[in-house]
Amino acid sequence: MPVPAPPLDLSADLVTLTRALCDMPSPSSHEKPLADAIEAVLTPLPHLEVLRDGDAIVARTRLGRPARVVVAGHIDTVPVADNLPTRLVGEGLHAEIWGRGTVDMKGGVAVQLALAARLTEPARDVTWVFYDHEEVAAELNGLGRVAREHPEWLEGDFAVLCEPTSAGIEGGCNGTLRVEVRVPGVAAHSARSWTGTNAIHGAGEVLRRLEAYEPAAVEVDGLVYREGLNAVGIRGGIATNVIPDECVVTVNYRFAPSRSLAEAEEHVREVFAGYEVVVTDAAAGARPGLDDPTAADFVEAVLAQTGGAPAPKYGWTDVARFASLGMPAVNFGPGDPVLAHKDDERCPAWQLQACHDALGAWLS
Amino acid sequence: MPVPAPPLDLSADLVTLTRALCDMPSPSSHEKPLADAIEAVLTPLPHLEVLRDGDAIVARTRLGRPARVVVAGHIDTVPVADNLPTRLVGEGLHAEIWGRGTVDMKGGVAVQLALAARLTEPARDVTWVFYDHEEVAAELNGLGRVAREHPEWLEGDFAVLCEPTSAGIEGGCNGTLRVEVRVPGVAAHSARSWTGTNAIHGAGEVLRRLEAYEPAAVEVDGLVYREGLNAVGIRGGIATNVIPDECVVTVNYRFAPSRSLAEAEEHVREVFAGYEVVVTDAAAGARPGLDDPTAADFVEAVLAQTGGAPAPKYGWTDVARFASLGMPAVNFGPGDPVLAHKDDERCPAWQLQACHDALGAWLS
Repeated sequence: MPVPAPPLDLSADLVTLTRALCDMPSPSSHEKPLADAIEAVLTPLPHLEVLRDGDAIVARTRLGRPARVVVAGHIDTVPVADNLPTRLVGEGLHAEIWGRGTVDMKGGVAVQLALAARLTEPARDVTWVFYDHEEVAAELNGLGRVAREHPEWLEGDFAVLCEPTSAGIEGGCNGTLRVEVRVPGVAAHSARSWTGTNAIHGAGEVLRRLEAYEPAAVEVDGLVYREGLNAVGIRGGIATNVIPDECVVTVNYRFAPSRSLAEAEEHVREVFAGYEVVVTDAAAGARPGLDDPTAADFVEAVLAQTGGAPAPKYGWTDVARFASLGMPAVNFGPGDPVLAHKDDERCPAWQLQACHDALGAWLS
Repeated sequence: MPVPAPPLDLSADLVTLTRALCDMPSPSSHEKPLADAIEAVLTPLPHLEVLRDGDAIVARTRLGRPARVVVAGHIDTVPVADNLPTRLVGEGLHAEIWGRGTVDMKGGVAVQLALAARLTEPARDVTWVFYDHEEVAAELNGLGRVAREHPEWLEGDFAVLCEPTSAGIEGGCNGTLRVEVRVPGVAAHSARSWTGTNAIHGAGEVLRRLEAYEPAAVEVDGLVYREGLNAVGIRGGIATNVIPDECVVTVNYRFAPSRSLAEAEEHVREVFAGYEVVVTDAAAGARPGLDDPTAADFVEAVLAQTGGAPAPKYGWTDVARFASLGMPAVNFGPGDPVLAHKDDERCPAWQLQACHDALGAWLS
């Protein structure tokens, strides 16, 4: 029986709030206690209208401002790897919070919650979205579900996704395509291997092409997207005394947002010409869209506080979902994305503060 | 609940008897009904002493002859592949019996049973062994169990294993070694693949070595044993968005009986120098041993009937078990070993008769 979550204190400092969120584990499909806690703490706030679908919570101002910004984050994490409860290492702005979810992405959720409570009269109307099932199969994604079931909840002119970017602005995202490359063989008893054709040996050529592949770096709207083509799985073999008649290499292609899905697929089919290629998963990327006026204004305001320059987002994120809804969207959140899903996941406290302050200033 | 098997008729012709044995399916671990039927039909015969351990049946003459021959066969098969009940195609000696077990090795078991019933006064004492669990892990092997539990049941001067040899004499057998070759990598998110090292790509070098490998053909005691080094399995990949940090290639080395297990292992380690190699299964081969006087006499008597010459056995068989007990042993049985375990497994009727007649003549 799930233990009811302790109430969240949105007036606490960001480190305390982030730790409270992380110490309430919420791996995908187990978001309910955290969703309940978020709903419970936001519902009493008079400046917010709170809506719920499953374990997705949407809270929005209705001030009649000429523009509306959607600020979204997912509340689920990948499974805990014995890295909870959180630990605080160091002090002040030098402090780091260690533990599952600190980077991906409860640090971002803490920033959202603190601002949702504090910004009672933002300059732009704001829709705060906290959603479930981001870390699992795309069809389960809570943001996708809300977009299908309640598209009006997500209406807006611009979206900020608080995915980890080390408190920098990362525009757009690469697309992702997954294929299976199948290498056939002829089965035989391994005692008389010369009567068969070994499919696993045949897969050597597929791995050779992957090894020799030189991924492109593609400039899109001023940002350079680095691509990647990688085997993420391989399987072959029926029994330990049988020459295998099939070997399947699962390949993941991360491609720049200037390529369409069809172009990405065509490219992969060219690389593996001569082999059967079956597409098993595909999601288009999103162009950075930083030429949109609201996006440009956001970038200018944030960089005035943080310095730096916008960068490309390599991983696929839900900004692509906003892009497909016709909304420009950027990633902006605390934590180094390279540490996401790692056992040593950890988030610097200063990035929590920097994101909070920059986003808060722009929205005020 | 297992259906009691119909009684076997050992006076029936060999085709009928083989079909009756095959039509009583006995995949490994499901040998009991067939073992019961064999025990039931042999026990009443006054010239045989019948012993049982689990689903292994041993029936022997005790005539005080100066020499004893062990004639052995396993009664289990690999799983049925929708190829039962048996079908008879063609007529007379041209007939072929199609179906699971016809080759591996109920044709041989039919020859054993027919001779066990008919040879009431053989020139050499005979121990007929019918055993279970040959087609699965070595530690389950019924012949091995009997050798451990009742070594005196297997005592003899020479052993004939009725494994399929197309009614020719196949001496000794290749050894078999199974290893896992492990290729390490460094995990990373596949969206930032350049921060990791792809273990599956790294396994390309292992497959390259396998592809380039030229297996030896080794002469041992006058027979030429063909070796083989093959991947029989490959696995790698944790999740479809993770650069894999390990890829494991399972390799099977079939080696000539002149090599010891230690030499075989050393050879494989040389081939995969630079990689971690873990031995997961090993069984020494058996030299043909045809210079033993009883073996030589058997070979001469059989070839006088069938023509041809002794050949090497490529697959590992339980002759190696007899060899390790210090008994020379040969394979001699109906059916083409290449068809063993195949969906189109089928045995020519003439081979049943040829094995029956040659073995019967030598034992009489």
